[in-house]
Amino acid sequence: MRAEFVNPFLISLMNVLNTMAQLELKPGAPRKKSDELARGDVSGLIGMVGPQTRGSFSITFDKALALEVMRRMLGEAPSSINEEVTDMVGEITNMVTGGAKRILGEKGYDFDMATPVVVAGPNHTIAHKADSTKIMMPFECEYGKATIEICFE
Amino acid sequence: MRAEFVNPFLISLMNVLNTMAQLELKPGAPRKKSDELARGDVSGLIGMVGPQTRGSFSITFDKALALEVMRRMLGEAPSSINEEVTDMVGEITNMVTGGAKRILGEKGYDFDMATPVVVAGPNHTIAHKADSTKIMMPFECEYGKATIEICFE
Repeated sequence: MRAEFVNPFLISLMNVLNTMAQLELKPGAPRKKSDELARGDVSGLIGMVGPQTRGSFSITFDKALALEVMRRMLGEAPSSINEEVTDMVGEITNMVTGGAKRILGEKGYDFDMATPVVVAGPNHTIAHKADSTKIMMPFECEYGKATIEICFE
Repeated sequence: MRAEFVNPFLISLMNVLNTMAQLELKPGAPRKKSDELARGDVSGLIGMVGPQTRGSFSITFDKALALEVMRRMLGEAPSSINEEVTDMVGEITNMVTGGAKRILGEKGYDFDMATPVVVAGPNHTIAHKADSTKIMMPFECEYGKATIEICFE
């Protein structure tokens, strides 16, 4: 997978959380993911299909960070990961991927997005099965961590 | 979502497990999914994008059934849901969706498939976020249950 595919997702995530929730995420170093553990409690997943490539993207939030984003975006914070929280995570998954799609489209890499699926559960695992390197990139702020994972064939 | 979108996935799943693992699954009645709980221990998810529609498909297996499919397909059965099992679930997700794509293509509904993602964990939840009805269909055999979920916009 080309490294230039990763930065647009990083930029887009920081933009989305800054704009929608006034949160500044601090990005950590990207690295290969070689296990299957999700780095948090709730994850948005989305498939991407283009003429040159196809793959999948996921974003995983710590529960505390997901609830804080809820509180900032919608003015309310449930105490658990309910359907409103998974709706919000699905919407963020859509927005981050849509932002990256625009940036990559300007570089000549076009893809279409499927619809997101949100999974949750203690110690859930996520395994991207595209035939390529899986890149993960951690982010953090005072409320907790978020991690994106990208895999393009 | 049109009902004619569901049957191709049912037929394809039964074909795949019959051909690859000599297992006969008995289909139950399809119904709307109105909660978020996954009906099993390990799930393959895949996104679909076409000119007329887009959506997501998932298939969830009881652990015992996933391990029996492993044993029948590969001649070995690990005792837990390891990376070989998630690889197999990802492959089945690809094959079932590919079979349904061929059937739907003959009816004039074309779509491209993204790459699968496999999630696992006790009591994990799956929420398809396409803006449409979520249809779930249960299957069973002597080794356990499998459930497919389909959501097309």
